[in-house]
Amino acid sequence: MTLEKAFAEELQKAREQSGLTQEKLGFESGYHRTYISQLERGQKSPTLKAILKIAVALGINASELVGRIERRMK
Amino acid sequence: MTLEKAFAEELQKAREQSGLTQEKLGFESGYHRTYISQLERGQKSPTLKAILKIAVALGINASELVGRIERRMK
Repeated sequence: MTLEKAFAEELQKAREQSGLTQEKLGFESGYHRTYISQLERGQKSPTLKAILKIAVALGINASELVGRIERRMK
Repeated sequence: MTLEKAFAEELQKAREQSGLTQEKLGFESGYHRTYISQLERGQKSPTLKAILKIAVALGINASELVGRIERRMK
């Protein structure tokens, strides 16, 4: 599994658990909805900055999100 | 504190704790020494991919490294 794919799946899962739409998550994290959509399709590799902002918007720690991705890739 | 600065400080600390030079860390993670140097001076914002590769080379979890950065920024 690629990093982009692992991040895509964990992001979508975390977003759905938080009850946010892609548009709302984009708004809350300061990114455009299309960037969120690209991340969830594995078309973009996120920066640490984006991970931190998105995690805040999702109400989770970035370290928790990164941990989920690490576990998925193992 | 900016994200780049927080990452820079935690990266340098973790690298020194692991006993690696910038050159050796670059070699082990697949990046050029100058990229490691730029990260440690806060001149570059890392991608998730770089964080994962660098963490493996340092012998720590990426989630642990990201957690240290989150704590430093609070």
